[in-house]
Order: sequence, then C-alpha cells, then structure tokens
Amino acid sequence: MSEVIYFEDMAVGNGIEFGPLTIGREEIIAFAREFDPQPFHLSDEGAAATHFGTLSSSGWHTTALSMKMMLAAWETRPGPRPAALGAIGVDELRWLNPVHAGDTLRGTSKVIEKKVSRSRPEMGIVKSQVIMWNQHDEKVLSMVPIVMFRTRPA
Amino acid sequence: MSEVIYFEDMAVGNGIEFGPLTIGREEIIAFAREFDPQPFHLSDEGAAATHFGTLSSSGWHTTALSMKMMLAAWETRPGPRPAALGAIGVDELRWLNPVHAGDTLRGTSKVIEKKVSRSRPEMGIVKSQVIMWNQHDEKVLSMVPIVMFRTRPA
Repeated sequence: MSEVIYFEDMAVGNGIEFGPLTIGREEIIAFAREFDPQPFHLSDEGAAATHFGTLSSSGWHTTALSMKMMLAAWETRPGPRPAALGAIGVDELRWLNPVHAGDTLRGTSKVIEKKVSRSRPEMGIVKSQVIMWNQHDEKVLSMVPIVMFRTRPA
Repeated sequence: MSEVIYFEDMAVGNGIEFGPLTIGREEIIAFAREFDPQPFHLSDEGAAATHFGTLSSSGWHTTALSMKMMLAAWETRPGPRPAALGAIGVDELRWLNPVHAGDTLRGTSKVIEKKVSRSRPEMGIVKSQVIMWNQHDEKVLSMVPIVMFRTRPA
C-alpha cells in the first residue's frame, strides 16, 4: 500500500461512513445570518407558517456539514488517505427532509464511477453517491460529488 | 401586482443580477477551518503544490456566497419579492475556476423551467440557471437550483 490512496487504489463500491454530528440552534442561526437569511432558517416563528414547521438549517449548511464529517472520517480512519485534488462539482444535490436544531446527522459516501482525465493524465475523476440521514433514519440529503484524485506517479 | 411574487408571476427568462462581493483571506480560512479543512483552502503553502496555486475558497463557501448575494439582490430591489418556500435541490453544480482571496464575485440567475407541483398545488417548482464570475470575467460557478414558490392563493 502507498502512503496515500491514489486514484488507482479506489474501486467502485468503496466507501466511508461519516458522522455522527449534532447540529445546534445557535449554529443554524449563525450560518443563516451569514449566508442564507430566510425566515425559516432564522427562527421558529419564521418557520411556523411554512412546511419546515420549526427552525431548519440552510441546505448549504447541511451540505457543508457533510463535507466536514467526511473529512473528519478520513482523518480518524487508520491507514492511508485519499490524494484529493478538489472537486469539479456536484450532481443531483437534494435536500430531502428539513434538518432541525438538535438533529444528529450521519452518512455514507460510496464510489459509483471513475475515469482518468483525458486532458490531465495526472488526475482521475471519481463520482460518489453521498447519502445523509437524521437520528430517525430519514434521509436529509443526497448528492453525487465529482472529485479529482491524483493518479499514481509513474 | 401582488405584494409578493407568486409562482404565476414568474416567467422563463426572468432573472436577477447579484453582487458584487469581495471575498477576504480571513473569511476563506475561517470557513475552511469550520467546514472544509483541506490544505488548499487553509494556506498559500498548502495550495502551492496543487492546481489551485494560491489559497482558494472552499467550493461550499463560494456556493453559500451566491445564496447570500442573491438574497441581498432581492432585498435591495424595489417592488415585490418572490414567495420562496425553500429549495428542493441543485443540479449540475460546477466550480469552474478557483476563487482566491480578494476576488470580486458577481452573478446572474435566470428562470429556465417552471411547473406546478402535482402533489402540492399550493407550490410551484422553478429551475434557474445561476452563473457566477470573478473580476476577470472568468466563470467560477454554475448551477441549476430547483426552488419551490407559493402559488397565488385562490
């Protein structure tokens, strides 16, 4: 095994579990004030009249937390780490249920497709299916990140 | 005109310009520490060995800033505001160029498709094409948010 996980070391079906992480009310409001100040992300009162019901996190906050949890999962896992070079983008991002203050989130990421970059052979492109659940086993998020990884040096 | 913009008031081709907003070094590092602590989002040194070159914002930070700018653009525009009920998700999110400290971002959002929800006739679903540029007129982000809007009360 190499010290890092190169593109060649990744196989369709490989994955990681991440979380749990509990999201707090102050956190939800602070993120929303900074980036997404819509009423349902700022207070229970603002959410009451909507399908959210009570204060719910910005979808961008939930998504950023999935990133935080995935990186933490790799950090704490023994053995080599993937040689990630940044993401190209994300397909099919869906916020499937509201995330409320006090919810505990966890998720999985699994490789579904991989190919070498034609224009940049030092990189490979990996698509993964990410799914995130709350403590009631309800899906709150799904997405397909497209991330570049270093290929093994010749 | 109604006091709010209902689903029925929105037409394909309608849109809004948003920004400008300049992103600072401390901001980039603070967001990355909290949500996306990869080396190229934390320091110039960590970015030097990668295609980012110098410190670059987390893609999730850039995306959250597009949300911030869009909401601010609606806030400061005279006239009614859209009755947004939250987003279902986002298709085809792409980070097209790195965003560096000091970059000034701006963008556009334009309606590309709309349909009434079959299961919830009090809601309509609107897809928009969002594009964001830096001060060099390079595209840094594109995405297709899918957002629910209230239909006009009967």
